[in-house]
Amino acid sequence: MLARGGGVTVWRQIAETLEAEIAGGGLPAGAKLPTEAQLTERFGVNRHTVRQAVKSLVDKGLVRVTQGSGTYVEAKPLTYPIGVRTRFSEIVVGQARDPAGKLLGFRETGASEEIAEALGLSPEDPVVLVESGHFADGVPISWAVTAFPLPRFARVPEVYAATGSISAALAACGVPDYRRARTHVGAAIADERDAEQLEIAAGRPVLVIESVNVDPDGLPIQWARSHFSADRVRITVGG
Amino acid sequence: MLARGGGVTVWRQIAETLEAEIAGGGLPAGAKLPTEAQLTERFGVNRHTVRQAVKSLVDKGLVRVTQGSGTYVEAKPLTYPIGVRTRFSEIVVGQARDPAGKLLGFRETGASEEIAEALGLSPEDPVVLVESGHFADGVPISWAVTAFPLPRFARVPEVYAATGSISAALAACGVPDYRRARTHVGAAIADERDAEQLEIAAGRPVLVIESVNVDPDGLPIQWARSHFSADRVRITVGG
Repeated sequence: MLARGGGVTVWRQIAETLEAEIAGGGLPAGAKLPTEAQLTERFGVNRHTVRQAVKSLVDKGLVRVTQGSGTYVEAKPLTYPIGVRTRFSEIVVGQARDPAGKLLGFRETGASEEIAEALGLSPEDPVVLVESGHFADGVPISWAVTAFPLPRFARVPEVYAATGSISAALAACGVPDYRRARTHVGAAIADERDAEQLEIAAGRPVLVIESVNVDPDGLPIQWARSHFSADRVRITVGG
Repeated sequence: MLARGGGVTVWRQIAETLEAEIAGGGLPAGAKLPTEAQLTERFGVNRHTVRQAVKSLVDKGLVRVTQGSGTYVEAKPLTYPIGVRTRFSEIVVGQARDPAGKLLGFRETGASEEIAEALGLSPEDPVVLVESGHFADGVPISWAVTAFPLPRFARVPEVYAATGSISAALAACGVPDYRRARTHVGAAIADERDAEQLEIAAGRPVLVIESVNVDPDGLPIQWARSHFSADRVRITVGG
């Protein structure tokens, strides 16, 4: 029963009830939340009040709203080891989840100073910038801007669009294997773009991971800046 | 000159002017900002307006307010490599800054499940929890809660208080060397405690680093959860 006229607003009481059910396992990780109509009926309140309660759970990173599909309790975080051999698909498959990569866009341009330095190029040397989204069981884990030198990697966008796999795209360009040469890890507050790509509330924490991959000869082939939902991954290093 | 009656509020114009001076190097990294009185005079506005402008720079992580000392432009981020051998003092000294560690408090207690698992103990086995602050050139970089097994490390708080060095405290307990066995990196939004310890605005991004150190025999000796200002460090892994 909801206590009306007490010190705690009604939407907050509903949010606390749902939070307790999530914490207690009544609404387990990955479960779909009841619909707005069902919550409206259950708590005997209007839709506006239910919406406010659900929004507060989104703002806390406890549930995720998927456009047109519903609201879901966040799954357990994905353990994401960073090392010499870091492959998104292998990491996701290794945790019994289904990986996917989606091409969001690409363009050919001159390398920025930062990208040129990372790839051993001169500023304005031609690169292709690829934007991509990365998913586990359909849930957004990260989105990235990635740069590849041209003309060597001109086919990356086409192959990535078809396969959703950076490894496959690099293999198609004659690089069957590669390794991580360096990684920087930072943190930021999710902006509108992060919120849209990751289906999180603006203001949630984001891990910003910059990396350089090199081919078996040690030649830099790929620079990436990836934004991970900090609520959905647990980065591990070494050990 | 400030344009009054235009579309942009006066405090925002002042903030934009100071931001441009920081970006352009007129107010270089580490510099002290002019005092409130000086800014009041320079811009011909009242203290309230100056305060609002400076607060907006704090909220963006561009300047840091030190109680009783003044407001400073943030220094360049500290590069912080995480590896088998991670020593705060060595990292800070290596970048020509002056390291310091400060004991904030300690208590003996029973190990939580998480700490017991990390240290190879049983829950409720005795540990000492140490809270500490870590500085470079007097600027807070991180604060940490650290757990050490008892009775082996009973002297850690005393030696740490005297030396500001975890390495010295461990050496005093018969552990002359140690290495990092595992590290987790996450991100969070600064809460009130982070804001106070790190002299940052609540709401700024924080890197949360959990680590386990082991002695030369591979026995876990130290678990820590450290909160780093994400604006002040650049974590590097491998490479």
